[in-house]
Amino acid sequence: MYKAPITDIAFALEKVAGLGPAMEQGLLGELTPDLLQAVLEEAGRFAGERVAPLAMSGDREGAAVKDGVVTTPKGWRELYADWSASGWNALTGAEAFGGQGLPTALSAAVFEMWNSASMGFAIGPTLTVGAVEALEAHGSEELQARYLPKLVSGEWMGTMNLTEPQAGSDLSALKARAERAADGTYRIFGTKIYITYGEQDFTDNIVHLVLARLPDAPAGVKGISLFLVPKFLPEADGSLGRRNDVFCSALEHKLGIHGSPTCTMIYGDGFVAGEEAGAVGWLIGEENRGLACMFTMMNNARLLVGIQGVGVAEAACQQALSYAGERRQGRATRLVPDGGAPGQMSPIRDHPDVARMLLTMMALTGAARAICYACGHATDMARARADDPSAAKAWKERANLLTPVAKAFATDVGVDVASLGIQVHGGMGYVEETGAARLLRDARIAPIYEGTNGIQAIDLVVRKLGQSGGATMEAYLGELTETADAVAARNEPAFGATGAALAASLADLREATDFMTNCVADGEMDTALAGATSYLRLFGLVAGGVYLAKGALADSSRPDRATLARFMAENLLTETAALSRQVITGAASLNAARSLLERDAR
Amino acid sequence: MYKAPITDIAFALEKVAGLGPAMEQGLLGELTPDLLQAVLEEAGRFAGERVAPLAMSGDREGAAVKDGVVTTPKGWRELYADWSASGWNALTGAEAFGGQGLPTALSAAVFEMWNSASMGFAIGPTLTVGAVEALEAHGSEELQARYLPKLVSGEWMGTMNLTEPQAGSDLSALKARAERAADGTYRIFGTKIYITYGEQDFTDNIVHLVLARLPDAPAGVKGISLFLVPKFLPEADGSLGRRNDVFCSALEHKLGIHGSPTCTMIYGDGFVAGEEAGAVGWLIGEENRGLACMFTMMNNARLLVGIQGVGVAEAACQQALSYAGERRQGRATRLVPDGGAPGQMSPIRDHPDVARMLLTMMALTGAARAICYACGHATDMARARADDPSAAKAWKERANLLTPVAKAFATDVGVDVASLGIQVHGGMGYVEETGAARLLRDARIAPIYEGTNGIQAIDLVVRKLGQSGGATMEAYLGELTETADAVAARNEPAFGATGAALAASLADLREATDFMTNCVADGEMDTALAGATSYLRLFGLVAGGVYLAKGALADSSRPDRATLARFMAENLLTETAALSRQVITGAASLNAARSLLERDAR
Repeated sequence: MYKAPITDIAFALEKVAGLGPAMEQGLLGELTPDLLQAVLEEAGRFAGERVAPLAMSGDREGAAVKDGVVTTPKGWRELYADWSASGWNALTGAEAFGGQGLPTALSAAVFEMWNSASMGFAIGPTLTVGAVEALEAHGSEELQARYLPKLVSGEWMGTMNLTEPQAGSDLSALKARAERAADGTYRIFGTKIYITYGEQDFTDNIVHLVLARLPDAPAGVKGISLFLVPKFLPEADGSLGRRNDVFCSALEHKLGIHGSPTCTMIYGDGFVAGEEAGAVGWLIGEENRGLACMFTMMNNARLLVGIQGVGVAEAACQQALSYAGERRQGRATRLVPDGGAPGQMSPIRDHPDVARMLLTMMALTGAARAICYACGHATDMARARADDPSAAKAWKERANLLTPVAKAFATDVGVDVASLGIQVHGGMGYVEETGAARLLRDARIAPIYEGTNGIQAIDLVVRKLGQSGGATMEAYLGELTETADAVAARNEPAFGATGAALAASLADLREATDFMTNCVADGEMDTALAGATSYLRLFGLVAGGVYLAKGALADSSRPDRATLARFMAENLLTETAALSRQVITGAASLNAARSLLERDAR
Repeated sequence: MYKAPITDIAFALEKVAGLGPAMEQGLLGELTPDLLQAVLEEAGRFAGERVAPLAMSGDREGAAVKDGVVTTPKGWRELYADWSASGWNALTGAEAFGGQGLPTALSAAVFEMWNSASMGFAIGPTLTVGAVEALEAHGSEELQARYLPKLVSGEWMGTMNLTEPQAGSDLSALKARAERAADGTYRIFGTKIYITYGEQDFTDNIVHLVLARLPDAPAGVKGISLFLVPKFLPEADGSLGRRNDVFCSALEHKLGIHGSPTCTMIYGDGFVAGEEAGAVGWLIGEENRGLACMFTMMNNARLLVGIQGVGVAEAACQQALSYAGERRQGRATRLVPDGGAPGQMSPIRDHPDVARMLLTMMALTGAARAICYACGHATDMARARADDPSAAKAWKERANLLTPVAKAFATDVGVDVASLGIQVHGGMGYVEETGAARLLRDARIAPIYEGTNGIQAIDLVVRKLGQSGGATMEAYLGELTETADAVAARNEPAFGATGAALAASLADLREATDFMTNCVADGEMDTALAGATSYLRLFGLVAGGVYLAKGALADSSRPDRATLARFMAENLLTETAALSRQVITGAASLNAARSLLERDAR
């Protein structure tokens, strides 16, 4: 069963991501190391004792829909009630609306725990965070006053309605329409798919944020507006009024996150008897500026999806480590303390190939965690340094830079680590009762939604590397290099060849970065896009490898940190040279081969 | 829906794996190119028209057990009846027992089709092949006469009973026991788990091959005997006699291959009323030599599991290519013939990142197919050259060498390609109705069973590289190098830098091979085992890359073959340098970090 790795998480926040110095400088409000520790411990307890025990039954039962009414798995409704009553939903919300205003990085760490315990449960509150952010940034005072207190507390949940059957990665193809009503509200019509927790039995009301087009809107993404559409229209006193014309017509039958209802939502179909058709909605922000509103919250939403990868990976590590310590097969060549008498079987972790899998899982998980926390911390620092526009801009651009890496690298890690976790279990890993298979099934969605990982890679290469004329990336590379230099200078035996390996991988990243930056500057887009995914993985491996080493430098009392950093540097970072070659030389053969993909070409 | 790639398969058999020259030399019996083509076409038709349509419903329904009676999904019983009546079960069986005696390589190609259509269905007949081989090689004349005609025709199915709860990868821990009976038969007692098609409703009788220990057997693997235990004891006239004391107590609830019943089998529990407890069994081969009997068939069983990887990968390629040609999102930068008018969305295959995924899938699938077919062909040639012991030995050792690579590399490819197939589908890939998710669920078992891929890697490094003092591997490397040289000499623009890339990767493989060979010779086992998995992947990538190029050399009328070989060489083979580094330098940091895996070390 999941046990939150409080020490590792607190360490990654304070010593690697940068919360330690920031707290010392008073930049994170009232957050202190003690408060941070207390929040993590409480969250860890709730995640391990309350959420995790309902993960497997929730997966087996799944969510169900009948006549538009969704039933979540047994116990989940009560779990959510206790969870939100304990204040967990309010962690980052503005204090003006009852939130605790704690940093994004800490919220990411806590969300990691919910996701380790049950990704299907955690994804509901993840969406509410997005709705709160959009309203805080763009909602009118009236909308804020009416909705934010209940969304911050968790009394109501929020949803994000973007996708339509013909419009997935390409939002310009959206067709849902909005009509202006005489009273200043709008009427929304259309079908949205893949709506996570679009309907549920956790809360009395649900607040849908919906992208739609006004009749006179320009074509493409510049004609999209964002609307707030509640399931029940609130009365002036906050009580629930009449039912709105929005309903759930079906749930998807998915590979994983079975407890989470993934809904097809129908707006304006005349579902409410006696009322004119059209879901009543309120504009958020300005007409035709809906996409800008979405972008506001997208960084954090993408970070929280990356965190799903970290959470699942951590759960897979714990399970595999535990199994590999108990399961005995064969006799390892290595003499180990608990290897027992001759003839006795060894725990499978003593077999080098199993050790390789376990260490790969641990290193990748730690690397992805550090990247995600560093990304969250950059967002917090941009806010904390609002007094200094140039510092704020640098932090904001740092967050922008790390967001696609956090999302894509960490979700790929989630899938890879969960799959290795199955392999460690052997045949037991393929049997659903063990739970290892569920982790892979759950993890597999995260590289797809909230912008596919391919789109993250394009975002990184096309939009993020060039921020401030490349200075943002250059500053980041400089920081990574400083750490690598410090490792080399430390001359600590536990690091082995870590310093040299990091330096070589950083050179690979620099070379690929220069190449990509030039491609984009020269308009060689097919070349840049062909290598984008390899480039993002290269970025993630190098940053993650450096972060593990940074943590080891910061804590010489724990030589195990140095040995894991060394394993990552000397084994996993060997891949960086290959990735750099793919970026720099791979496009020609890829583009030459594209004709093979035409239908019936084979 | 699956359409068998007859042209690609026939080409890989004849021009890459070597069946073309062997048929010309009359080494493959009566097999001619025309017969080969006819078999592939018929099998392809059956796989596409009959098997594939029942894959999804079979996955949804799954197999069920009640009171020891197993029910397979609707239509599967009839499907099996038609399939075996069409002669497909008898493809490789000895002609003396009604088989067609066709080559292993052709059988592998046909099994690829069954697996592309439905891995859950195909795995049943795969196990029967194993039982037939064990009986042909080691069964007494009486056992052969009684069982082989019905196992070859498919009227009865066979199973393999090895695993017990405490004995998975380590068969020395087997506890099932056998007692000698006065009439020369044996009584078998014990529990076996993970028994594929251990009970089913396809056939009237089931022939279990069971590993068990005699009371006076030595400890460990040298005390294991192999027994034949039929579900019903056949009468002298071949009719079914009394029910034997073996039954299915439960089915596993698995991640995939849901239609395939994975049984817990109980032997000798006194299940049959009025009879003394103990399942009646007959010895196969000699007492305490059961493992040797198993090894006889292990090469082919492992090849056929590798083929599962190829089959699923091919199905995933077809589905992803089809979807990526139909689904339109965004506007690709590339001008394509069917890109349509400005403003129209492009098929997603025109986006470079999607093209990268599709080409990676196609290249890996082709590479894994070639390796598996070459492995099967080596087995056939060892038999064909029985007149020349040194040639036969060389071919046998070639088959031994390629078997772990075929099993592990191809099943890893199956998982990776199926996962990429999901990613190409975006959100649709996560919805079970699409079928892409099922392919990943099915594929995920193949790296685990029939010897985990980690065990394959150890087998390759510890037992196979050193065959004939390294000459077997050296000869293979020589052949690969010849092809690489021929590519370089061809000077064909479509090959791009393929020749240079292959040469560099071959150098990586040579360097890693020398290192591993020396480790094993010097008894540096922890070092060898630490890098075994990386070494096997390195081997598979290089061999697969060379095979794609070999095919391209052989067919200059199809420049698309050269472009795919080039994509593999210039993109995917960039990884070989990293893998070689992991082999040569990775063990130190891995072994240093192993203390991290002790319980509670974190």
